[in-house]
Amino acid sequence: MFKTRLRRLITLQSAQALDCVALMPGPNLRYLTGLAMHPSERPTLALFPLHGSPALILPLLEAQGLPENLPFEVRLFPYTDEEGPQGAFEAAAAALELAGKRIGVEFLQMRVLELRRLEQVAPGCHILAFEAFLHELRARKDDSELDQMRRAIRITEDALSATIAQVHPGQTEEEIATELRVAMLRAGAEEVAFIIAVAGPRTASPHVSPSSRPLESGDVLIVDCGAVYGGYVADITRTFAVGAIPAELERVYAVVRAANEAGRAAVRPGVAAQEVDRAARRVIAEAGYGEYFVHRTGHGLGLEVHEPPYIVEGNEEILRPGMTFTVEPGVYIPALGGVRIEDDVVVTSTGAETLTTYPRELTRL
Amino acid sequence: MFKTRLRRLITLQSAQALDCVALMPGPNLRYLTGLAMHPSERPTLALFPLHGSPALILPLLEAQGLPENLPFEVRLFPYTDEEGPQGAFEAAAAALELAGKRIGVEFLQMRVLELRRLEQVAPGCHILAFEAFLHELRARKDDSELDQMRRAIRITEDALSATIAQVHPGQTEEEIATELRVAMLRAGAEEVAFIIAVAGPRTASPHVSPSSRPLESGDVLIVDCGAVYGGYVADITRTFAVGAIPAELERVYAVVRAANEAGRAAVRPGVAAQEVDRAARRVIAEAGYGEYFVHRTGHGLGLEVHEPPYIVEGNEEILRPGMTFTVEPGVYIPALGGVRIEDDVVVTSTGAETLTTYPRELTRL
Repeated sequence: MFKTRLRRLITLQSAQALDCVALMPGPNLRYLTGLAMHPSERPTLALFPLHGSPALILPLLEAQGLPENLPFEVRLFPYTDEEGPQGAFEAAAAALELAGKRIGVEFLQMRVLELRRLEQVAPGCHILAFEAFLHELRARKDDSELDQMRRAIRITEDALSATIAQVHPGQTEEEIATELRVAMLRAGAEEVAFIIAVAGPRTASPHVSPSSRPLESGDVLIVDCGAVYGGYVADITRTFAVGAIPAELERVYAVVRAANEAGRAAVRPGVAAQEVDRAARRVIAEAGYGEYFVHRTGHGLGLEVHEPPYIVEGNEEILRPGMTFTVEPGVYIPALGGVRIEDDVVVTSTGAETLTTYPRELTRL
Repeated sequence: MFKTRLRRLITLQSAQALDCVALMPGPNLRYLTGLAMHPSERPTLALFPLHGSPALILPLLEAQGLPENLPFEVRLFPYTDEEGPQGAFEAAAAALELAGKRIGVEFLQMRVLELRRLEQVAPGCHILAFEAFLHELRARKDDSELDQMRRAIRITEDALSATIAQVHPGQTEEEIATELRVAMLRAGAEEVAFIIAVAGPRTASPHVSPSSRPLESGDVLIVDCGAVYGGYVADITRTFAVGAIPAELERVYAVVRAANEAGRAAVRPGVAAQEVDRAARRVIAEAGYGEYFVHRTGHGLGLEVHEPPYIVEGNEEILRPGMTFTVEPGVYIPALGGVRIEDDVVVTSTGAETLTTYPRELTRL
């Protein structure tokens, strides 16, 4: 599997006339090698030359933690804390003859730290954005990836069900978030990607953190969360009613649910990403709430919580089988509150499959 | 408090003749503003000009989630998903007249994404490394910061005690890590910074992740973990014995414990950071295990898990009251196993205080 992915990388790289691709610890490196590393103050950089085996510059103590069997031959350039990384960068650049070469990098992952070192040890090199091609490499999920995503989603949904069953007025947003986090870990999450649990008027802002505000009867409660399994992320949002909620939010709920359904119904191969956004947005606009739907309809999902394809006006990228993304329309009315209903979908050969299964009816707690 | 910190920033900035400092979501921005934001694919950048109020380029939906009362006036440059960030970057650069200016940035935080946008909207600007000065700003922790660190440490130690009390042969490293994570969250952790739980021969590598290997009698178990509270991180390692461990590891334990004590005893104002490393390393070298102590003795600790001062040979930085860092010597013998004992210390006006209180005697489980 990794050898196939590496061959596909080399093909893309060759088409862009890149002599080398430099990858940071992160989703692309994990996709290509299985290595789940994290950036730190000790720089780590993987170099994939067009010819010859890849090279890995890394701290010695990370080198000792590498799995015994990497999927293909890798030349290691480790450095100790006393030495620092300079010598390892120089040795790798010399071995791969990087001076003056065209090097593709990840603009969203590489820091100025690594960029400057690379420019220094490879004088005259040309640094080019390669992210879009790496995303292309990862765009269509294979069956093994979809298995991991389904597992991440099942863990997330099981944990959400168990947590919601215990939610009660007086509990704070932070307490709900902690219970959900614990439930995800117990259900087998590799890690918890994120949890948003907000209630009452605070739901009028789509991206706020859980607070110490206690849940009250009459609140809406928005829970947006995702567990990670095998590196793959789930992302689901449901909006709940704590007792009787304002009549307008009941209406908004029905509108957002219809928008979610319209968005998902628009997903099929050959359609542009922006069409899914339009389908969901139209329902909300026609109900008179267009100005309150302040974010895109969705984003790609996989090794990253947010990755292409972005489901947004202006994105003409064509959907293809195996692409996975969220459909998450929302309406947020200042001082009153908000509603968001989010599902994860995969494009199939004929249409779409919704991977998330959590009920979409308004649940009263 | 934030106004004082901002004034100190301006002083440092002025001394470096920087017209502006550009900060990413992260520890420095949190220190200066209290804002706990995270980098995403939607760029966020805070600009601190030498004169006039700071500016914040950010996605509209993050702007909506900002606290009502920021500590000082901030000019907001929000952008929607449909617009993208280009216009907001241009408007901010125009408002702050950044073209041709000297701009300080964080090499460890800023990505090529933000760097390239900044270079584009501020033609002719000079991008300079400002990280060392920001670290200087944060180097000496004040009482409110030490309070948060003490709280993070107490949460971590309470969770570690509760977890260790339940550890038993047959439990996997991953299960131990999950129990510890749950215990930290229940004890009030804002988040869990990291958990390493490894046992048996795997302890011979200092930086490996928990695996599905079940704990066996005769194993050493290394647990290295830290909770976050108020943004501040704890970092503690203890090594436990599961039943009777090999005689050599018993000897190694005594050596590492003596090295930990020697390292902590060397901490006082006016001493160079490398002297603490030397004090710990000397004990291990004299016992004949020098080649197996493969990492630095410690690292600064605060809003980041790893920050200056680094306790490593070659670092002549002078320790000053209020500096906080780890002392964590370790010995790792291939195929046999390892021992690490890590404490967190703060430099006082006369010496040092060890903030971690967990017992250092070899505990047998």
